[in-house]
Amino acid sequence: MSPAPALTSFRAIDVIRKKRDGIELSRGEIESLVSSYTHGDVPDYQVSAWLMAVVLRGMTRGETAALTDAMLRSGEVLDLSALSGKKVDKHSTGGVGDKTSLVLAPLAAAAGVTVPMISGRGLGHTGGTLDKLEAIPGFNVNLPVAEFRRVLAACGCCMIGQTAEIAPADRKLYALRDVTGTVESPYLICASIMSKKLAEGIDALVLDVKTGSGAFMKKEEDAVFLAELMVETGERMGKQVVALITDMDQPLGCMVGNALEVVEVIEVLHGGGPDDLRQLCLELGGWMLHLGGVANTVEDGKKQSEKLIASGKAFDKFRRMVELQGGDLRAIDDPKKLPKAQHTMTLPSPKTGYIASMQAEQIGTACVILGGGRERKEDSVDPAVGIVLHKKIRDAVSAGEPLATIHYNAESRAARARQRLEQSFQIAAAPIREKRPLIHRVIGHEAESGAKN
Amino acid sequence: MSPAPALTSFRAIDVIRKKRDGIELSRGEIESLVSSYTHGDVPDYQVSAWLMAVVLRGMTRGETAALTDAMLRSGEVLDLSALSGKKVDKHSTGGVGDKTSLVLAPLAAAAGVTVPMISGRGLGHTGGTLDKLEAIPGFNVNLPVAEFRRVLAACGCCMIGQTAEIAPADRKLYALRDVTGTVESPYLICASIMSKKLAEGIDALVLDVKTGSGAFMKKEEDAVFLAELMVETGERMGKQVVALITDMDQPLGCMVGNALEVVEVIEVLHGGGPDDLRQLCLELGGWMLHLGGVANTVEDGKKQSEKLIASGKAFDKFRRMVELQGGDLRAIDDPKKLPKAQHTMTLPSPKTGYIASMQAEQIGTACVILGGGRERKEDSVDPAVGIVLHKKIRDAVSAGEPLATIHYNAESRAARARQRLEQSFQIAAAPIREKRPLIHRVIGHEAESGAKN
Repeated sequence: MSPAPALTSFRAIDVIRKKRDGIELSRGEIESLVSSYTHGDVPDYQVSAWLMAVVLRGMTRGETAALTDAMLRSGEVLDLSALSGKKVDKHSTGGVGDKTSLVLAPLAAAAGVTVPMISGRGLGHTGGTLDKLEAIPGFNVNLPVAEFRRVLAACGCCMIGQTAEIAPADRKLYALRDVTGTVESPYLICASIMSKKLAEGIDALVLDVKTGSGAFMKKEEDAVFLAELMVETGERMGKQVVALITDMDQPLGCMVGNALEVVEVIEVLHGGGPDDLRQLCLELGGWMLHLGGVANTVEDGKKQSEKLIASGKAFDKFRRMVELQGGDLRAIDDPKKLPKAQHTMTLPSPKTGYIASMQAEQIGTACVILGGGRERKEDSVDPAVGIVLHKKIRDAVSAGEPLATIHYNAESRAARARQRLEQSFQIAAAPIREKRPLIHRVIGHEAESGAKN
Repeated sequence: MSPAPALTSFRAIDVIRKKRDGIELSRGEIESLVSSYTHGDVPDYQVSAWLMAVVLRGMTRGETAALTDAMLRSGEVLDLSALSGKKVDKHSTGGVGDKTSLVLAPLAAAAGVTVPMISGRGLGHTGGTLDKLEAIPGFNVNLPVAEFRRVLAACGCCMIGQTAEIAPADRKLYALRDVTGTVESPYLICASIMSKKLAEGIDALVLDVKTGSGAFMKKEEDAVFLAELMVETGERMGKQVVALITDMDQPLGCMVGNALEVVEVIEVLHGGGPDDLRQLCLELGGWMLHLGGVANTVEDGKKQSEKLIASGKAFDKFRRMVELQGGDLRAIDDPKKLPKAQHTMTLPSPKTGYIASMQAEQIGTACVILGGGRERKEDSVDPAVGIVLHKKIRDAVSAGEPLATIHYNAESRAARARQRLEQSFQIAAAPIREKRPLIHRVIGHEAESGAKN
């Protein structure tokens, strides 16, 4: 009834109110909000109110894609078209003992796929790829973009941390979410992950979405929801995306802790290593090779991956990347030269039986307590400390037999970590019948061909 | 399983997360949040996220009372126990042409009730008591607390604006809500109103909760919800509170605009004035006298109110208050001396028929456009401008007969206001059967005795 108001410029308050009232925001509104916030034209207190409205009202697929796109465009989007081959990355939502990235980047590069991997640090109870890489003496994760390109061109893979140029909106939003109780939203998690990954200039992305006691998403349905959101968002933006829902109900492999995990990575690249870690690397590698256009099927990609490990080509690529990024090759060729904790202590089993379950988050937290992760943002990480598991779920154990070995440098931290660990193993009298699959589901691109384990 | 964490001090993030997840907050948590925010120890961006969580998750009655109490205690709570008689105030949720406060404060004071009234300014399309009082030349609404007490002691009523000492948390929270889309929550509205009113040191409160096209709560169910919340919150804090749900589907009375409304107030105090305004003043006055302990029943209170008007005692009290607060009595004794607009223009009816409905919010907005309210916070108010309605709902009207007269000082504003007004009247061919009651419902204290109209 009243005359239409004159076209006005963007007002953050209008966007907040719309989201509060459950009305879908337009792409333009989301772009304006993200861009104004990144440039400091909208204050934190308006954005935090909007973030809370998003947490409680959710977002449509269109809004999620628009948010991802706006965050992606807040900074530089790498153009890697000058490099040969398809560019494929892998991203994990975070777990305990998850060191697959260090295996997969050189493995896929050895097959001819380019892997421009920008990773993060440990968050909460989970380990971070950058912290693991830095356990290799001299390894530099802080390369400028030009150097990142140079290493990629030279060996096909490069692993660095987020640069100031990539998705600055995400850095600013993430810091605000962290202090305003607005981290836990699949829409915001999706936009945060996908904006950074798509800014890498990739053609395809393999997502490893963890579920179980050591994952952020303990419930499989939540992991599936996030996976579907990320796959659809990536596809809307013209990328090939597949998500594997994988098991994180116990640590992956046997080693938890930065240098210890590098040891296990080298074992896998030499054709050994624990079965679950090796299997997951082959599965994710199969997908990376398939999406990277060097394998016709995922199965073919897995077979190629096995061969690249058996031939030593994957390890050679890892060695080359370490060298190009300043790492000390002596520690790669002789893992005993990696940082080592001064002391070890074993945790004996209190009884005879079978490992029924593990509290993987508690094990991850125990590693953080030892100094392997950060309790506060400003903490430094001790690369040497960690936990070696001698038993996994379903294994038989006798009373007194070691469940785990704690590698530590400070007695008081070891005592606190041990307390956590003691409560992390549930031992049953009877053998465990159920076996959780390693790959729960595959979502997205030609998913049917990968739903096996 | 993990050892209990040491008792830590208050963390805003925990309170935000709890509210986000729909968990009831404790009184201590709410008190800590309000007190830390008032003292600048919690930043705006955390509180705005919390406010949005409150808007979308709601609050329990206990939380609402705790929030009201914390806001009330953020500043000075007046102790008026040295003054004789019960202290009773009236508060309206805001409407168009609602000038009852100017009638009721002196009316109740004339009956022996003490009325310590702290009011606000116009908000959105609604008028504000302070703006109306300031249409009286010289009238000072900015009295310090000591002077407020002195006027109260001298004449039994005093009408001022919010002081820095009263509920500073509300001022800070309100400013934040205004820019973060978190105004529209009954819980936050209740806490804001009740914290300020209870800080006045009153014994009882009569709430006039408006519903209809000119109210903030257009739907009666929303008005009733807010009314029940305020009544219960007041009662939990040991006060007698009653809420009348009253009609705001058309402006109250015929005058909209600050000086024009003072004219109508003087008419009512002289025993005249429009029927709806006069009736509502008597109804609210009846309640104030009853809760103030000078009338056994509301009906008795209404009769006393009629007599106090007829005898001129209510007008004398108004005159005395104006004098004590620095107002020019010549403008009260001869309302022609109140500020007057330079020009008038009439709005003729486009057709013959009956007034079916009015868009009261549009009429209020037309008055704001004329300069009678603020389009932006920093605008000054023109006391002289406004709108005089010649017809009310159900009235018969002939084509060309004036519907309203616009009092204006600026041609361009008048043109914009006229456009709004033209769209504010719906004229039907047939007589209007339905009649909306003036008092829809009475909620709270001995409500049954007042549910009549």
